Amino acid sequence: MPGEFDLIDWIKSQHPPTDFVPVPQGDDLAVLRWNAADLLLVGVDQVLDGIHFDSAIHSPRLIGRKAMNRNLSDCAAMACLPAAAVVSVALPNGAGIDYAKELYLGLREAADPFDCKLVGGDTGSWPGKLAVTVTLLGKSAGIQPITRSGAKPGDGIYVTGPLGGSILGRHMNFTSRIVIARELAATGSVTAMLDISDGLSRDLRQICNQSHVGAVIDAAAVPIHDDAIELSRRDRRSSLEHALHDGEDHELLFTAAHTPDVKGIVRVGTILPEVGTWLQQGDHRIELAPRGWQHSL
Amino acid sequence: MPGEFDLIDWIKSQHPPTDFVPVPQGDDLAVLRWNAADLLLVGVDQVLDGIHFDSAIHSPRLIGRKAMNRNLSDCAAMACLPAAAVVSVALPNGAGIDYAKELYLGLREAADPFDCKLVGGDTGSWPGKLAVTVTLLGKSAGIQPITRSGAKPGDGIYVTGPLGGSILGRHMNFTSRIVIARELAATGSVTAMLDISDGLSRDLRQICNQSHVGAVIDAAAVPIHDDAIELSRRDRRSSLEHALHDGEDHELLFTAAHTPDVKGIVRVGTILPEVGTWLQQGDHRIELAPRGWQHSL
Repeated sequence: MPGEFDLIDWIKSQHPPTDFVPVPQGDDLAVLRWNAADLLLVGVDQVLDGIHFDSAIHSPRLIGRKAMNRNLSDCAAMACLPAAAVVSVALPNGAGIDYAKELYLGLREAADPFDCKLVGGDTGSWPGKLAVTVTLLGKSAGIQPITRSGAKPGDGIYVTGPLGGSILGRHMNFTSRIVIARELAATGSVTAMLDISDGLSRDLRQICNQSHVGAVIDAAAVPIHDDAIELSRRDRRSSLEHALHDGEDHELLFTAAHTPDVKGIVRVGTILPEVGTWLQQGDHRIELAPRGWQHSL
Repeated sequence: MPGEFDLIDWIKSQHPPTDFVPVPQGDDLAVLRWNAADLLLVGVDQVLDGIHFDSAIHSPRLIGRKAMNRNLSDCAAMACLPAAAVVSVALPNGAGIDYAKELYLGLREAADPFDCKLVGGDTGSWPGKLAVTVTLLGKSAGIQPITRSGAKPGDGIYVTGPLGGSILGRHMNFTSRIVIARELAATGSVTAMLDISDGLSRDLRQICNQSHVGAVIDAAAVPIHDDAIELSRRDRRSSLEHALHDGEDHELLFTAAHTPDVKGIVRVGTILPEVGTWLQQGDHRIELAPRGWQHSL
């Protein structure tokens, strides 16, 4: 295809065959030897110019990192370990091979610390905008995956860090919570988990819907990120609102029957038997409606 | 995300949990129970508006089919069976959920005959053009994958059908050669294989490069598709040129030590010890240089 870069050769040169990836890269499909004891987890996530990043502002390195980190964050959400990834890139005509290489280096920067192998890809240029799609294969590695559907009335609701205002920059450069996710899941008391991508208020509903329960969040307990405070100065919405509704925090939101003995978690509420999500502010309990995905570039 | 369609729910409703996919869909990642005896093959392939299809002309059903069939064709190239796929769709703003559903139905139409499960996806709308990315997981299912690197001097070179002129319509609506690929691989005599996506002349070089051999193609033996003849009437290039250089045939190109006892294959040449690809026309042997990817929408 005119304009297609043969990145496959370049990627291939960086990955000699291993026991896990026995066939040299660059064939029609990558070949993996999957460990029989492992469940195979798979998901796909794309980042699109003008939606998840702005190519006029963000470097290809940063865009690559975000594309991979979003997928790694899905691994954290299920408490699995990333094993391998394949990537497709739709590159605007004229972007150039150096731009594409920077993208791949960004992907690698995010994946390498977890020994997640980039085993294949498809890069094409087109008269369109930049789109980067990562498909991630995760392995259970001795820990049963945590779904969204196991929350029970009386469970505590927890997050792994302060929330809100990620649009100020964190959304491009976060670290997936894989390490703490594995620690949490290993305690055996986590009943449901996901990563906060669309905002606490919206993602909490995912757990509630799939677990057929409700929830109440204690307004005073929600940890608020400095970025949420900074943003509230600018837009005059409260920092709590930002913490509750902003997207792309990529902290974990989970439920547990007993508070896990793991550092860095904050209890923010309780699972209820009746359907509905609520915010407790002092003596008042009001409906906690998702305000939509507040992210705009 | 504003404008994002919750297709996950719709897809989920079509796939109850099974032994292979034990967790209901709609979680952060799909969970698969991988058969210990199977190698896991994985690849990704994207189709882009204006490059691989034209959304002004082609229906979403047809676009979905092509996106999936390209990936299924990669399975054929390795002689594996498709097991599961995940899909991401970057949908132009305003395309609408019905359009997206038609896309998914097209994907399913191609995947269902092979019992290939659509286990996850990511759909977002954006101010860009349509891009559909399919990641496919294949299983070896008792047959060692055929790579591109096993061709040996003296091997015959074969194709599974007539070539050229796919741009007249076949490129949108081909059938992957999985069935014959498995038959061929089961004979044990196939040494290298791929599917013709960039044209015989170019794809032959892939096999030669990766096998460190050369090849000669017998001009008189190359099966020419009726579409190549029709196209040669229009553009006054020869039908042989179309058969040798046109892309997106998705027939298999393979090498074998002995002619496999399988119907529908045609021997088109011989692997040589010395590097280089050649075309034998009567007494003349000329260099067979790839003419580039002839596909233009």
